[in-house]
Amino acid sequence: MFSFKVTKQSKNSLARTGILETSRGKIKTPVFMPCATRGSVKGVSFEELKNLGFEIILGNTYHLYLRPGDKLIKKLGGLHKFTNWQNSILTDSGGYQVFSLGAAYKSYQNKNGDKESLVRFKKEGVIFKSHLDGSKHLFTPEKVIDVQKNLGSDIMMVLDVCTEYPASYERAQVSMELTHLWAKKAIEYWQKKRNQKQALFGIIQGSTYQDLREESTKFISNLPFDGIAVGGVSVGEGKTNMYNVLKWVGPNLPQGKPHYLMGVGEPEDIIEGVKMGFDMFDCVLPTRLGRHGTIWQTKNWQKFQKIDLRKSKYRYDQKPMMKDCSCPACSQGYTRAYISHLIKEKEMLGMRLTSLHNLFILQELTRRIREKI
Amino acid sequence: MFSFKVTKQSKNSLARTGILETSRGKIKTPVFMPCATRGSVKGVSFEELKNLGFEIILGNTYHLYLRPGDKLIKKLGGLHKFTNWQNSILTDSGGYQVFSLGAAYKSYQNKNGDKESLVRFKKEGVIFKSHLDGSKHLFTPEKVIDVQKNLGSDIMMVLDVCTEYPASYERAQVSMELTHLWAKKAIEYWQKKRNQKQALFGIIQGSTYQDLREESTKFISNLPFDGIAVGGVSVGEGKTNMYNVLKWVGPNLPQGKPHYLMGVGEPEDIIEGVKMGFDMFDCVLPTRLGRHGTIWQTKNWQKFQKIDLRKSKYRYDQKPMMKDCSCPACSQGYTRAYISHLIKEKEMLGMRLTSLHNLFILQELTRRIREKI
Repeated sequence: MFSFKVTKQSKNSLARTGILETSRGKIKTPVFMPCATRGSVKGVSFEELKNLGFEIILGNTYHLYLRPGDKLIKKLGGLHKFTNWQNSILTDSGGYQVFSLGAAYKSYQNKNGDKESLVRFKKEGVIFKSHLDGSKHLFTPEKVIDVQKNLGSDIMMVLDVCTEYPASYERAQVSMELTHLWAKKAIEYWQKKRNQKQALFGIIQGSTYQDLREESTKFISNLPFDGIAVGGVSVGEGKTNMYNVLKWVGPNLPQGKPHYLMGVGEPEDIIEGVKMGFDMFDCVLPTRLGRHGTIWQTKNWQKFQKIDLRKSKYRYDQKPMMKDCSCPACSQGYTRAYISHLIKEKEMLGMRLTSLHNLFILQELTRRIREKI
Repeated sequence: MFSFKVTKQSKNSLARTGILETSRGKIKTPVFMPCATRGSVKGVSFEELKNLGFEIILGNTYHLYLRPGDKLIKKLGGLHKFTNWQNSILTDSGGYQVFSLGAAYKSYQNKNGDKESLVRFKKEGVIFKSHLDGSKHLFTPEKVIDVQKNLGSDIMMVLDVCTEYPASYERAQVSMELTHLWAKKAIEYWQKKRNQKQALFGIIQGSTYQDLREESTKFISNLPFDGIAVGGVSVGEGKTNMYNVLKWVGPNLPQGKPHYLMGVGEPEDIIEGVKMGFDMFDCVLPTRLGRHGTIWQTKNWQKFQKIDLRKSKYRYDQKPMMKDCSCPACSQGYTRAYISHLIKEKEMLGMRLTSLHNLFILQELTRRIREKI
């Protein structure tokens, strides 16, 4: 059971509000999805997420497949039951993590001291070595669907090839073509193994090349996916390039399907994405920034600034993280001085308070966006 | 403003219930005080502590003096305002931390590569090197009162010499005598610099020697302290030795004053301590064990066992941490399998859930003890 309905279309831009419905409940879009990478959104509890108003979170197939393992999670009743999160879950396909692996460890020293690549792409799938123990694994378009079926997420993503930035035209084209081949294989497999509970989204690639992005948009949009995502952005290409991709892709997406901009979580980028017709966003940024003591502030919910609470000027600062903020940390009276101290001492409470604040900012931002459309 | 009233005396043992009152509120005794070492109880929030029913927490003078500094905390309105914890706070004197420093780093390599001791005791106080940057500091009985006045805690502790275990009789005696000298100096200083808000507790030493413990009990009890603590236990001497100390000291403590058994947090030891007339307990154990995945279980609240959730047998275990447990983690449905996964992945949520469970166990234990007396 999965549906999406546009409830309002802006007259000034491609922005729209909508309702995504999964068997777990309704989700108001545009929506930001916090990342529960290893089955937990770092620093916060599910109760806190629910209290903040989040209706869907994201889990990472790559990490959960390696540990504790999708078979274990299946045996324990699926990811919802395992984690105790009752609302919707989207799982990525592992494509992005494999890309990160490839980027972070261009080569890998094996037991004999030889350098090997950690990641190798073949027509049938991608072979990679676990970052945990070096064990070898193969992800195919079919396999990652099976894994996500084991996880039991509400929305699954197809396996794609996330192109690094910068990439030559040839490399971007090869990656895109493999992405398309895998998308077709995934759809074919899914049509045979379909269940009623889960939805499957396709992913557009094509790096920063207009004709490739347009070609990919057309190709992926023409397949019977439940939703369409844009991948390969927010990989170091910068705002100008990213916004170009949104311009090339956004207007050409099928209107009746949800549009998901993957890995994007800077407030300004969410605003821009919404204008270009995107409904869904995810990013580790709010919690990752928070853990390092960096928080967002805004006065008008249009422009946002980051401040680093570890800086010595905040040692005596008794103001809340943000003026008039109604997040659980600011509204309870926690000061910059105290949080600054906690972050420097690596106390969990500090990381929790900053993460709650940053998550609140994105939740409140999407709420305001929905209201405004 | 500080008072203590025994509300009920058991007929079968020295156990009693009482009410401790500080300017922040009333505290039912026997009481367990969670440790907010650096101004935060690791892994949990103040709201969670309050919801668990804790009425007093402990802050560490040594750590807060070094970072962020007692002067900073004073300038920001004291430890309560700094941390946002509105209930009572007891601060230790730093004596125990200095003892730990001495034990952990018997010698310290200075810039020139020479080995130096990190801690040196003199008649006027103890000179120690910061574990953070090697800077030199002097704690005197007077100085630690000033520091604790800056922190603004409700209950202050005198500077003592915590004897390591095993210690020779001579060493234990010398340590005790210095502890007594400092206790007298502290009381004299406090009588001049007294304020109405804070209380000052004395500390009994004497290691595992009966005559020294009895002498120290008499000496400290005869000084006009607001409460009497026993230090130098739970330093590796084992249960038999510790229970002997309780037997020598407990019956000889002044009835009208609160009795505080420092650093003790094993459930069975709290039960034993209460029987020997102790009213207050503190320990990092519930949160430290929890962070490493170890939790307490009990069926009858008399015997307790520890289980290590990292063990592979818990990977598929869908039971709560403890059967019929009403702690915030167990009652919300979190399973051993999930928490085991989180702990292995070093996810904060795992450490938070185990810490909440262990803190609940001690809170519930003292509640049951109070009810039973």
